[in-house]
Amino acid sequence: MSKGRLEAFSDGVLAIAVTLLALTLPTPDHYRKSLANFISTNWPSYAAYLASFLIIGIIWLNHHALISGATVVTRPAVIINLGLLLCVITVPYVTSLMAQYLRNGGWDANVAAALYSGVMCGMAFAFAGLFEVLGRAALAADPSRSYAAHAAARRRFSAGVIPYVICVGVAFASAYAALAVQFALAGYYLLDLLGAKPITEATST
Amino acid sequence: MSKGRLEAFSDGVLAIAVTLLALTLPTPDHYRKSLANFISTNWPSYAAYLASFLIIGIIWLNHHALISGATVVTRPAVIINLGLLLCVITVPYVTSLMAQYLRNGGWDANVAAALYSGVMCGMAFAFAGLFEVLGRAALAADPSRSYAAHAAARRRFSAGVIPYVICVGVAFASAYAALAVQFALAGYYLLDLLGAKPITEATST
Amino acid sequence: MSKGRLEAFSDGVLAIAVTLLALTLPTPDHYRKSLANFISTNWPSYAAYLASFLIIGIIWLNHHALISGATVVTRPAVIINLGLLLCVITVPYVTSLMAQYLRNGGWDANVAAALYSGVMCGMAFAFAGLFEVLGRAALAADPSRSYAAHAAARRRFSAGVIPYVICVGVAFASAYAALAVQFALAGYYLLDLLGAKPITEATST
Amino acid sequence: MSKGRLEAFSDGVLAIAVTLLALTLPTPDHYRKSLANFISTNWPSYAAYLASFLIIGIIWLNHHALISGATVVTRPAVIINLGLLLCVITVPYVTSLMAQYLRNGGWDANVAAALYSGVMCGMAFAFAGLFEVLGRAALAADPSRSYAAHAAARRRFSAGVIPYVICVGVAFASAYAALAVQFALAGYYLLDLLGAKPITEATST
Repeated sequence: MSKGRLEAFSDGVLAIAVTLLALTLPTPDHYRKSLANFISTNWPSYAAYLASFLIIGIIWLNHHALISGATVVTRPAVIINLGLLLCVITVPYVTSLMAQYLRNGGWDANVAAALYSGVMCGMAFAFAGLFEVLGRAALAADPSRSYAAHAAARRRFSAGVIPYVICVGVAFASAYAALAVQFALAGYYLLDLLGAKPITEATST
Repeated sequence: MSKGRLEAFSDGVLAIAVTLLALTLPTPDHYRKSLANFISTNWPSYAAYLASFLIIGIIWLNHHALISGATVVTRPAVIINLGLLLCVITVPYVTSLMAQYLRNGGWDANVAAALYSGVMCGMAFAFAGLFEVLGRAALAADPSRSYAAHAAARRRFSAGVIPYVICVGVAFASAYAALAVQFALAGYYLLDLLGAKPITEATST
Repeated sequence: MSKGRLEAFSDGVLAIAVTLLALTLPTPDHYRKSLANFISTNWPSYAAYLASFLIIGIIWLNHHALISGATVVTRPAVIINLGLLLCVITVPYVTSLMAQYLRNGGWDANVAAALYSGVMCGMAFAFAGLFEVLGRAALAADPSRSYAAHAAARRRFSAGVIPYVICVGVAFASAYAALAVQFALAGYYLLDLLGAKPITEATST
Repeated sequence: MSKGRLEAFSDGVLAIAVTLLALTLPTPDHYRKSLANFISTNWPSYAAYLASFLIIGIIWLNHHALISGATVVTRPAVIINLGLLLCVITVPYVTSLMAQYLRNGGWDANVAAALYSGVMCGMAFAFAGLFEVLGRAALAADPSRSYAAHAAARRRFSAGVIPYVICVGVAFASAYAALAVQFALAGYYLLDLLGAKPITEATST
């Protein structure tokens, strides 16, 4: 499996999943209320749409960095990548579920927010797994690499899973709080990326 | 971030958004009127479909020109590009909203046309921002480039935002006029592109 | 515009349009009849699905041959290509319209079949236009090319438009006959392609 | 037809088909039961979703291996590849049919499971055909290749069709058993792939 085809397929799935998010936005059927009223009533749909867009966008950025730094792509990495993509394609579904139930409220809103947070949590685990598998393959291919550096990076990467696990718990306490946590996490990662130095010299395709 | 992967992901999102436009076209449910009648009654849907197609097509053309001229892709450029893509994936939704409300008329049609024009306006701003960020990065990487040339291009580029801002105001006066302005803008850019000289020698993939 | 990005965007739109065809297949809502009965009643949907799949597949094959033979990609070629893509993304819509009205019959079935044939006709015209524009650009870039060879190829290519124009007329006489003509045309081109010699040595990506 | 464009188009279709699977997941309309109840009642939808995802993922992995090993891409191979893609784009449709009828039960569930298994069977046949056509072309291009090795690989590959044919029969006995067989087959192939040695050194795009 060349890195090129792994990236092309992953990019395809990410691009489609992000575009299908638009199908989760509510369409007015009844015309009983004004459009402005309809949109303001349905604000959770638009907020969930934006959160899911940001999360998939950040995954795309991180996925690129992870793969471009890899030296060997192993079958386990490809299988974990499929697990990541399974979570990605489920994002539009759980986004639409959460948006629908946030409007209705009640215990179901908590369940929907927990499902949403659970899928995001699954992505964080898949990322940590992908990092680990690619890092080990790189170590095996080039024994001169420092194991300590890999272990340190792993600790940092694995810690990234913790807030996503906590957010699943938060969802059972308050669905709105879970949505806010997802926004905060996405914003944190975006700002973190913004602060980083220019990624690379542009290279022609 | 290589230019190749930035283009691949953006092209993917643009290609999907443009194809999903087809889902905004109205399907006859009732069979109460003839198909010819149904289609002529729903002409705003077809007009909005065509306008959105042209706008996304022009974005694709300009996006290519912008990225292929870039020398350095920075993280801020990637983030602004995500903002542009957020607008792009929202196009099918606002297209369907505007088409639906143009048929019904009233104040809601104005609101829908303003939302539509607002998303197009957001794309124009993202483009101007992308141009600015890429231009500055190129200046920083190669100090021998002329700042005056960049500033002149920036003035031209920023001016392109103005008609889109005006169109949002037009929408509140008349939804149909806003749709007409969007068509005129798309037609102007297409003719402008048609008049330009052959873009480049073809290069094999 | 490099050939690579023109092909990538066109391939993306073709791949998505062909996959969205699946959304035109009828889903049983009522459970009043058996599934086998439902499927046999809705055979026009499956026939139209297959015809549209074959037509888009053949376009993809021919598009590849056309672009890979081009030496210069001009802006007019890019604009005509956008026109071709506009037809392509409309295919799922007219496929679903025709399938729906073939089941109902009457004059509307003729109108729907004429719309379907019209979109296919538009694609044939866009192809002929693309061929002409790319051929002229190649002649202008390399005056040693034979104009006679270009003109002969153009005659052959333009003639390909004729059956598609005729099919629009056939649709007004009989919707089923138009569908049969579309199948026959797709089958003819597929067999024609099958008979051709191996396309090219495989080249690594 | 370069291998690159064949892979790009196939990857595009596979990526879109896998992402459209999300549209087959059931959305609660009535709010009569709790969300947790709704999800547990609709477990066949989620199981079918997962099975289809795994099957398309494995096709992607095998497709890559098949094409990357090919030396000559012939038109017959391109045509068979189109047949494979026709099956792939039909997967979301038969997934949704099977999920819907598994909930309702009765003879229709058997018919739906047989359609589902039939599409999977079609993919297995297309794969065996693609293998045969690419292998023969490689033999013709390079007579020093061993025919015996090709014949042995063909026997192994053709045998892979048998369980898919059997599964169509199983569907008529029990729809649930057919779903279980599909899972078992997908799991077998995934484990088989996992056991294999690192696929390749990573190569930059």
